[in-house]
Amino acid sequence: MKKKSPLYGVKPEVLKVPAYTLRAFDADVKLNQNENPYDFPEDLKDETFRRFKVRQWSRYPDFVPDSLRLRLAEFAGWQKDGVLVGNGSNELLLSSLMVLINSRSRVAIPFPTFTVYRLISNVLGARIVDVPLSADLNYDIDELITKSQESKAAVLIVNTPNNPTGSVLRGEGLRRILEEFSGHVLLDEAYYEFWGHSALEFLKDYPRLIITRTFSKAMGMAGLRVGYLLAHPDLAAQISKAKLPYNVNQFSLTAAEVALENIGRFRPAIEAVLKERARLSSELGRIPGLKVHPTEANFFLIEVSGSPREIFDELYGQGILIRDVSSYPMLSKCLRISVGTPDENNRLLSALHAALSARAMKA
Amino acid sequence: MKKKSPLYGVKPEVLKVPAYTLRAFDADVKLNQNENPYDFPEDLKDETFRRFKVRQWSRYPDFVPDSLRLRLAEFAGWQKDGVLVGNGSNELLLSSLMVLINSRSRVAIPFPTFTVYRLISNVLGARIVDVPLSADLNYDIDELITKSQESKAAVLIVNTPNNPTGSVLRGEGLRRILEEFSGHVLLDEAYYEFWGHSALEFLKDYPRLIITRTFSKAMGMAGLRVGYLLAHPDLAAQISKAKLPYNVNQFSLTAAEVALENIGRFRPAIEAVLKERARLSSELGRIPGLKVHPTEANFFLIEVSGSPREIFDELYGQGILIRDVSSYPMLSKCLRISVGTPDENNRLLSALHAALSARAMKA
Repeated sequence: MKKKSPLYGVKPEVLKVPAYTLRAFDADVKLNQNENPYDFPEDLKDETFRRFKVRQWSRYPDFVPDSLRLRLAEFAGWQKDGVLVGNGSNELLLSSLMVLINSRSRVAIPFPTFTVYRLISNVLGARIVDVPLSADLNYDIDELITKSQESKAAVLIVNTPNNPTGSVLRGEGLRRILEEFSGHVLLDEAYYEFWGHSALEFLKDYPRLIITRTFSKAMGMAGLRVGYLLAHPDLAAQISKAKLPYNVNQFSLTAAEVALENIGRFRPAIEAVLKERARLSSELGRIPGLKVHPTEANFFLIEVSGSPREIFDELYGQGILIRDVSSYPMLSKCLRISVGTPDENNRLLSALHAALSARAMKA
Repeated sequence: MKKKSPLYGVKPEVLKVPAYTLRAFDADVKLNQNENPYDFPEDLKDETFRRFKVRQWSRYPDFVPDSLRLRLAEFAGWQKDGVLVGNGSNELLLSSLMVLINSRSRVAIPFPTFTVYRLISNVLGARIVDVPLSADLNYDIDELITKSQESKAAVLIVNTPNNPTGSVLRGEGLRRILEEFSGHVLLDEAYYEFWGHSALEFLKDYPRLIITRTFSKAMGMAGLRVGYLLAHPDLAAQISKAKLPYNVNQFSLTAAEVALENIGRFRPAIEAVLKERARLSSELGRIPGLKVHPTEANFFLIEVSGSPREIFDELYGQGILIRDVSSYPMLSKCLRISVGTPDENNRLLSALHAALSARAMKA
């Protein structure tokens, strides 16, 4: 490669990793990004604007967002010094990996799971140790421990509930992993509010556990990018060295504080999603040619008898956007559907019913 | 170190790097962070609120902020595909380093300069090649080329105007570096509006040049965290692999668009800062026991005859906050002062005058 080539000097592991992309689609019914179908409450938006308006935008945010950390510590039930706030939880995942791995490290990652784990680990030059889910798309604890431990992985990244399968890592499984695997466990609890369980109780005994969470899903703040991390305070202090100064803007910090001060206001949206999840589960199960996987998150993985792409296109033609995950390993027959409002879900159900019944009759 | 220690597994290079910290001070007159003393215009704040209010906060920002990139491309005079938007320019610096360096790389960094360059490079495991400024605190082009080239540095990071010295890397010097050094040059132009020059013209011929800029200074948006990067489109595409998805929140994206649509509105604040800079330069020069360094940025480096810490404390006692940079290499006698409003600068001048005259009389 010539010195003048724009790609000269770029690390080979970066050149070969595919970019994380998402085609921009517009749609009436948007069920493709596991977003909360209920927006941040209007009066809390106004309160955020009111507080932010009196601040000078030209001034940097607080160096450490201590009042938000304190509120998060109280909310989560953990020590303030063990709480970090990030520009979305992915930033905190990146910071954690930056302090734990180098180009000689291995990172164990189950598959299929959220693509970004692999992308970041690859860019940082780590070797990925692939750990398949079981045939029914659940975590295989023995496999996770054996593969991670035998490969001497520095870190195991687990998403629970897992995107895109909806499966979870239960407490007893996590405890076995923490006992038998000697590396760090990065646990992404982005969807934990929809499951109702957290691994928080393990933090005290296992300082190699790092938990990340987000305001993007249950809190309806995907557009604002706020995540947080819970870890042993000494480890958190090291991870914070990799976090850029002023990493979260003051507007989003303000919104997050307003949200935590009014935490009860977010419960009805979660309850509504859970109720609709139960209804969707039973309704989807009645559609011919469709298998619905159990889920503990705000989305479903469905397996279809026809071509997932064709069904995706057919729904999109009717203004319903879902996620085609058929290119993921083990998911060649699958689509992912976020739980929407009752109206959105009704439109989804009838469109899916029409698409799949027509196919079932042809077959 | 025991397996149960919270620091087990943390990279040694991270353990030994000091955290970037800033003591939280409150003050009437805040001249410590090179912020714009003039806030984002009120009516443009309202316009930002108006546009953001109708968006659903629960939805992710656009996957690629194309309308902002297009505006930035027009504003900067560069191709849209060579523009990346970041959560502050530091994020784009991090992404660039992530795709260019690994733990076997060397990164050449002048000193004294902005601390974060060294911090990020250290955390990524690179070896730092220190390149001192000349005795009068200017860039020494020969030294920059020789040290970078002999050490086979992958990247040379240069800040122009340089924080905290105010010195600049001129076009002819940069051209020599780009001709004679075979690695990448990361040029941080955070303060370029106060100098009036950019290295943009070199991008076309030198695809190893990467320029970062920010909305934090001249645009009065430090609280919102928006930066951008200009590079060859093929290189930008690689750097964007290291940028997390949805890295800039929708509120700040909206504010940045509003700012660019009204770019002329930011000129009076820049002019006011430049006028005050000229006045401060001559007034500071008249204070006994104080040497003022030339600057092309919105701040001054001053050298004082007494203890910088004592003078810092004395000013702080009067509600004036400046930056004590005396722990930086080569700057043991120095303080850094941001240019404020005329009133703020008057308070600074009389406080400095009093502090230094009293010392001069005692001496």
